[in-house]
Amino acid sequence: MATVEMLLVEDNPDDVELTLRALRKSNFTNPIRVLRDGAEALDYIFGADAAGDPNLTGGPIVMLLDLKLPRIGGIEVLRRVKSDPRTMTMPVVVMTSSREDSDLRETYKLGANSYIVKPVDFDQFNKAVTEIGLYWLLINQHPVG
Amino acid sequence: MATVEMLLVEDNPDDVELTLRALRKSNFTNPIRVLRDGAEALDYIFGADAAGDPNLTGGPIVMLLDLKLPRIGGIEVLRRVKSDPRTMTMPVVVMTSSREDSDLRETYKLGANSYIVKPVDFDQFNKAVTEIGLYWLLINQHPVG
Repeated sequence: MATVEMLLVEDNPDDVELTLRALRKSNFTNPIRVLRDGAEALDYIFGADAAGDPNLTGGPIVMLLDLKLPRIGGIEVLRRVKSDPRTMTMPVVVMTSSREDSDLRETYKLGANSYIVKPVDFDQFNKAVTEIGLYWLLINQHPVG
Repeated sequence: MATVEMLLVEDNPDDVELTLRALRKSNFTNPIRVLRDGAEALDYIFGADAAGDPNLTGGPIVMLLDLKLPRIGGIEVLRRVKSDPRTMTMPVVVMTSSREDSDLRETYKLGANSYIVKPVDFDQFNKAVTEIGLYWLLINQHPVG
């Protein structure tokens, strides 16, 4: 089974579809795991069965994280990921519709690597996703394992 | 006087010239301040005269930070910037020739937003700088002020 290289934590099916399509159109073939809420994300990342940390081995390279999520919000997911030595070096890109300065400050202070406001315009959205893929999958370096 | 929007902390004159040229060629006109070592960078960021924090107001949007610097190294600059509430939300992109996993881990743990290994190839270097400019100056959002 291919190592998951990108986590997409997003509850809006339209945004999931748009993001996956934009990445495919730009020829990114990296394996992506979609997680629909914060609890699913934490279960996946930290393992639900406490039998080691299989999901942390070798990846993922980057997590795209929405903030407004059911059950457990994106801020809490970010806090957990960035306060655990096993996951704190994984780049987290916040992707949200919020332009609130308080969200910007809080997420950066918690250790978010980047903060993207989802463009409303379709073409701009595609372009932003392509840039995110290019930057985090091809240019940025991350620790191995 | 235009607000400084990018800090380039780099002691190698060739790398400074290449970086500035690549940004100009891609039509980035954002005001850039070049700082030649870690002490100069800290003096600039935190102010040498203790009269307020003029250099923190309104910017900069992003800091490109070399690791191997005279006087005070890039790791220490990163540590100071990311542990001060006034500067911790400023995105810091480490740009280095080091591929050492220990440097990757340490800088991410200290709060580096991104880590780029400087391409040796001239065209690849230009391309990487252009992508960095595109991503951090145009796509990424940062807190105001």
